[in-house]
Amino acid sequence: MAQDEREVAEALERVFSADSELYRGRGFMRRIGFGERPALVNIDLANAWTREGNPFTCDGMDVIVPGVQRLLAAARARSIPVVFTTTAYAVTEGPNSDMGLWHHKIPVEALRLGTDAVAIDERIAPEAGEQVIVKKFASAFFGTNLASFLRAAGVDTVIITGVTMAGCVRHTTEDALGYGFRPIVVRECVGDRVAGVVEWNLFDIDAKFGDVESLETVLDYLSTVEPAARAGIAAAS
Amino acid sequence: MAQDEREVAEALERVFSADSELYRGRGFMRRIGFGERPALVNIDLANAWTREGNPFTCDGMDVIVPGVQRLLAAARARSIPVVFTTTAYAVTEGPNSDMGLWHHKIPVEALRLGTDAVAIDERIAPEAGEQVIVKKFASAFFGTNLASFLRAAGVDTVIITGVTMAGCVRHTTEDALGYGFRPIVVRECVGDRVAGVVEWNLFDIDAKFGDVESLETVLDYLSTVEPAARAGIAAAS
Amino acid sequence: MAQDEREVAEALERVFSADSELYRGRGFMRRIGFGERPALVNIDLANAWTREGNPFTCDGMDVIVPGVQRLLAAARARSIPVVFTTTAYAVTEGPNSDMGLWHHKIPVEALRLGTDAVAIDERIAPEAGEQVIVKKFASAFFGTNLASFLRAAGVDTVIITGVTMAGCVRHTTEDALGYGFRPIVVRECVGDRVAGVVEWNLFDIDAKFGDVESLETVLDYLSTVEPAARAGIAAAS
Amino acid sequence: MAQDEREVAEALERVFSADSELYRGRGFMRRIGFGERPALVNIDLANAWTREGNPFTCDGMDVIVPGVQRLLAAARARSIPVVFTTTAYAVTEGPNSDMGLWHHKIPVEALRLGTDAVAIDERIAPEAGEQVIVKKFASAFFGTNLASFLRAAGVDTVIITGVTMAGCVRHTTEDALGYGFRPIVVRECVGDRVAGVVEWNLFDIDAKFGDVESLETVLDYLSTVEPAARAGIAAAS
Repeated sequence: MAQDEREVAEALERVFSADSELYRGRGFMRRIGFGERPALVNIDLANAWTREGNPFTCDGMDVIVPGVQRLLAAARARSIPVVFTTTAYAVTEGPNSDMGLWHHKIPVEALRLGTDAVAIDERIAPEAGEQVIVKKFASAFFGTNLASFLRAAGVDTVIITGVTMAGCVRHTTEDALGYGFRPIVVRECVGDRVAGVVEWNLFDIDAKFGDVESLETVLDYLSTVEPAARAGIAAAS
Repeated sequence: MAQDEREVAEALERVFSADSELYRGRGFMRRIGFGERPALVNIDLANAWTREGNPFTCDGMDVIVPGVQRLLAAARARSIPVVFTTTAYAVTEGPNSDMGLWHHKIPVEALRLGTDAVAIDERIAPEAGEQVIVKKFASAFFGTNLASFLRAAGVDTVIITGVTMAGCVRHTTEDALGYGFRPIVVRECVGDRVAGVVEWNLFDIDAKFGDVESLETVLDYLSTVEPAARAGIAAAS
Repeated sequence: MAQDEREVAEALERVFSADSELYRGRGFMRRIGFGERPALVNIDLANAWTREGNPFTCDGMDVIVPGVQRLLAAARARSIPVVFTTTAYAVTEGPNSDMGLWHHKIPVEALRLGTDAVAIDERIAPEAGEQVIVKKFASAFFGTNLASFLRAAGVDTVIITGVTMAGCVRHTTEDALGYGFRPIVVRECVGDRVAGVVEWNLFDIDAKFGDVESLETVLDYLSTVEPAARAGIAAAS
Repeated sequence: MAQDEREVAEALERVFSADSELYRGRGFMRRIGFGERPALVNIDLANAWTREGNPFTCDGMDVIVPGVQRLLAAARARSIPVVFTTTAYAVTEGPNSDMGLWHHKIPVEALRLGTDAVAIDERIAPEAGEQVIVKKFASAFFGTNLASFLRAAGVDTVIITGVTMAGCVRHTTEDALGYGFRPIVVRECVGDRVAGVVEWNLFDIDAKFGDVESLETVLDYLSTVEPAARAGIAAAS
């Protein structure tokens, strides 16, 4: 398998390299850059995704969780808005289900509102005064108050972490750009549960929807955000 | 005051009558009619609005509550989707508040998530398998999964009750039309807390956004909805 | 009729006065205030509404048009974003109509895309580089890119003018608040086609959704907006 | 290069195969199936994408265009709603641009409203009475009236064709599911401009968001849709 994985990674790298050449020649893959007022949005880092034994369990939490811990500390130190999302359903049977049609594709019936499975992993627990948005679909913006909240808070940049890369992180990033926020995806802090999908979705995003940046670059950026300006905004809003 | 109220009502009636004449001459005030698959959407009939002693307390619950009870019975008898909304906030202080900017206009800081004030009035309590949507703004559709749920359930008509007429009921009705649903507002089952606003908002809605119908008319309609068809939809979805 | 109008106005004033007392006692009718980066959004000031002889013709253009001219001059002088909307339909017959269900309430079939009726009134013509958003429903935000554009442009305050007060201006104001912008409705620059509706809709809005301000107050505010800051934003975005 | 392409395809196939095994074991990759009332939505098949010489030019039009022609004929024969989208901008310079932030990632400044580049390819030209929706972002639903139109028309299934797979087709599919429509992506009728991205995005979609089906399967399905039922809906709406 290790041999296989290496071969796959090499094959993907060759594709990305060829694709990037065409993209750059055509004027794609530009840098959107960081704005002045970021928020940290952590996608579905709840137990169903971060712990073993669930259909939704993802890999790589030994890197993702410590990375998000560092981002949380940096954001809280400067009073940068912090949002968590989880995906959970109140009604998973009958004609009133809030799953919409999604259970026809994936096992969302396992995500019951109020259970431990959909609670944010306590290693990165929300603090008092931080929002946990319960969403029903992949994007953190879809059918939620996230865009409203971010705009009212004066935010212009969305730092994105979490899972899954091929589902909720990708759709969130696409929507963030559409709503007028600069999406920054933190490379070490996103994950998934099958091979390859982290790599190809990061590639697509970086080409078209947002910047993929390293954890260190994002931490450096957060250390430059002015808390005073933030306070001014908070007071004003 | 009774004298005053009568004078105001008469004055409003005179305005509505003159306005209706112009509207009808211009082709406004058409009937949108009932579709084939209704849902019952009850707006903010939670204790903060239905009981005494809250900034949000509304009048007329002696008529609204029994009316909604009859609608609920009719809808449940035919497996018609039933939705309740409440307005509630998780974070009412600091830079992460989910109130957006609304607390700059009205006292939404009184509506704390998880308190009895924002729970649906037990006289019209949701049954198991009925959704309670927590919204942050006036419209039941705004930043929620309501449009998604209704479309996935095959709904084409939205029967609207609740409070307040000048706020959440009105905005919900406008959005329902926009999303492609036939809005029907039940005259006896909507209310507010100040004089006049029920009347003029019903007038505006009936002229432009949805049909205002009597409780009896809506109950008659609901009695004709085919439960078999509903089951077919539920199975299909 | 003049006698009638005076009586109606007086009756409404008495209602507003009583309602305001209750609202203020309960903590409603707060001031949302002006932010730092406004945009000017002019709703449906197209010929179907501003000129005689259309089902959509509105009153009061002798005051509204000069008022909007002054606002446009002030906004352009400081490079404040300016948006116009119109309501127009490409397909008004058959199963593909973009009117949705609205023609079941009002005569939107009269509003054909590409006709002079739906072009912005030339007395307040858009300049090169100003957006004209074609919407299908009442709110300027509903099913359009307006919220995206305003957020990307760093806007926090929406100055609203146009028609009709009971339709598009009201729904736009409700949505503006929901999306996290401070809505400011310019009293002299909004209108409608039937009696009373301007007054009661301004009352409802000022109580709950946005501030109703005089033209002079808004012009004073616009004169204080920093063009330098605006340029900085434009460059950054 | 042919050798290279074959190696990449084989490597991707191995990843997809391993991933599918895990997905299936976890209950992902379910079938959403066809509903009863489809619409055909053709994404960005305008000259900038379908013809040579544009930054947005895509490959594979020799297969995509004839495929879409067959779908159009089938849909029109049964009065199934047909929608085209294009991406185009009215203002590509200055503070009022409707590009939002997207020009910071890709060369959308090349897509000027009203130019031949953004007109639908005449080989698959819209007929009178078919909507062409001008969008500003990737998803056909984002900031447009598409969801409203489809719901008002009684549609429950969205047949998706067009380009690009890694951009607009993918985001449209994700949103379609969220809005409560069954997304069906037609394998032979979607394309892109760089290697690999069609395959991995189809893989992600089929795993989580919608069914990827062959042209023949979709044509078979369309031949079973009841025109009578459609007429009934059209009359009703």
